[in-house]
Amino acid sequence: MPRLNVIKRKTFHYKWSRHHKPALYVRPGDKVTFEVNEVMSWMITKESTAEDLTKLDPEKFYPLAGPVYVEGAKPGDALVVDIQNVKAADWGWSAILPGLGVLTDFDRPFLWKWNLANGRYASFTKGIKVPMRPFCGVHGVAPPEDGYFEVMPPGKHGGNMDVRHLVAGSRVKLPVWVDGALFSTADVHASQGDGEVCVTAIECPGEVTLRFDLEKNAKIRSPHYWIRGDSRPRRGYYGTTGIAPDLMEATRLSVRNMIDRLQKEYDLSPEEAYILCSVAADLRIHEVVDKPNWVVGTTISMDLFPRGGSR
Amino acid sequence: MPRLNVIKRKTFHYKWSRHHKPALYVRPGDKVTFEVNEVMSWMITKESTAEDLTKLDPEKFYPLAGPVYVEGAKPGDALVVDIQNVKAADWGWSAILPGLGVLTDFDRPFLWKWNLANGRYASFTKGIKVPMRPFCGVHGVAPPEDGYFEVMPPGKHGGNMDVRHLVAGSRVKLPVWVDGALFSTADVHASQGDGEVCVTAIECPGEVTLRFDLEKNAKIRSPHYWIRGDSRPRRGYYGTTGIAPDLMEATRLSVRNMIDRLQKEYDLSPEEAYILCSVAADLRIHEVVDKPNWVVGTTISMDLFPRGGSR
Repeated sequence: MPRLNVIKRKTFHYKWSRHHKPALYVRPGDKVTFEVNEVMSWMITKESTAEDLTKLDPEKFYPLAGPVYVEGAKPGDALVVDIQNVKAADWGWSAILPGLGVLTDFDRPFLWKWNLANGRYASFTKGIKVPMRPFCGVHGVAPPEDGYFEVMPPGKHGGNMDVRHLVAGSRVKLPVWVDGALFSTADVHASQGDGEVCVTAIECPGEVTLRFDLEKNAKIRSPHYWIRGDSRPRRGYYGTTGIAPDLMEATRLSVRNMIDRLQKEYDLSPEEAYILCSVAADLRIHEVVDKPNWVVGTTISMDLFPRGGSR
Repeated sequence: MPRLNVIKRKTFHYKWSRHHKPALYVRPGDKVTFEVNEVMSWMITKESTAEDLTKLDPEKFYPLAGPVYVEGAKPGDALVVDIQNVKAADWGWSAILPGLGVLTDFDRPFLWKWNLANGRYASFTKGIKVPMRPFCGVHGVAPPEDGYFEVMPPGKHGGNMDVRHLVAGSRVKLPVWVDGALFSTADVHASQGDGEVCVTAIECPGEVTLRFDLEKNAKIRSPHYWIRGDSRPRRGYYGTTGIAPDLMEATRLSVRNMIDRLQKEYDLSPEEAYILCSVAADLRIHEVVDKPNWVVGTTISMDLFPRGGSR
């Protein structure tokens, strides 16, 4: 019979490594509930101010819940992780952290704190409501190399992928690199857009329940997933394009154009608009073949806004 | 009262230019039906073979239906184009054209011809059915510069944007650069995924009805749009990731991983899998901030496949 296990909040580690001692041993079919710490190890709380963002200790970013040793997992297998439940806490935060984020000209720290108590949506300024679709930004396994690796960049071990579609009911498959896989999770997001453009989603502590299985000898080269996709918004999406010979430049232009639009149409400040893009707007690559210019779109559901807005 | 006008099949031009004589003058509020030629000026027909792909004359790519002069349109305005109807012909084609497409190692021309007669879906190999969602790859206006400009690259004039979401019921707004805007359209696609990764969608002749309006002094810097978004597929999406420090490289890895998946799971040839990605799989930028690695996802609706497939 499958076992339900709990990784308590006090059980976490920093950095990815094959050298971490497992916190728990499970068998394929087992479920684990992870109590997930605040992504900055509680350096940010309900009481924090923008000034506190300048005093963060990067050594304490990304406390990882785990690692879990999955019996029978061997290099070449895929670790199949079914996301059964994701709970966000009753508060969260988003921030602009100068030096991070896709746009480089936001040079002042900015903090927005969200009340998540109603469990369905997070209220922003100007009557804007962001639906809660909680998921974990981080699902990863130990990389094969010796040493201790930063969590910020995702990689062939998965990790900080920020795939916003990995909500309850979805599945992610991670390539296994070491015996037992050594899986950990972190970084609950109450909501995020594809791209996470300002570098933060709605960051919050939380709790996630996962079921583990193995696909033997799957030989996948990077993470795969199965997702349900979004419901169609009642009032559609507004989109802005960025067109340029470099995908990053096209991305920046398209986000910049959306920020302009949100400022004009909904009277947001540039900082508010940037945060809203990060937590609720999606980046799509519309075309990457019409040489030499590519088209990236930034889209946002119009259901977020208290009035229809103009199309 | 708004007028309904027709741009007949024989009325087309090559290249974007402010020097083209208008084919039609309309007022804001007017509708125009465009008979849209085959994108290679009928060099590809129902009878074509892969060998014919090596004999194409690039001077005859992208016959543009138009241009339409919209009275009152001035530089700084946005031309608002409501897409009222898009009809695909009863046949179409997709091809791998070596030297084009996001993957560079497909070096043999490959042609797939589609029967679109039922109007709802296009049948592929192995029982795969691609739903028809016709739109025009090209909606554009004359650029401000003197001269004649290739249609392949999109730009600040819109043009060959290949935004697959511009189906009937949606809206695109183009920045106006010259008096009257000089709008043209082309390149009907019966279906396409975000990215159009192999460089062709389901290419077909067709007919499109558009309604024009102006947003005076809108001062948009690149095209905007309003779209309804996709219905949620019954069986969800399968996705593969590409993780790399460059968005183009991440895109290529993610498409490559999807091709591998389609080969293994559905027994497609690499060429068939590449074509299927181009006409039905979507590129999303999941994160572009977790330095130094970005995550691009290629997702495909599982409703296309005759059986569930494994998740």
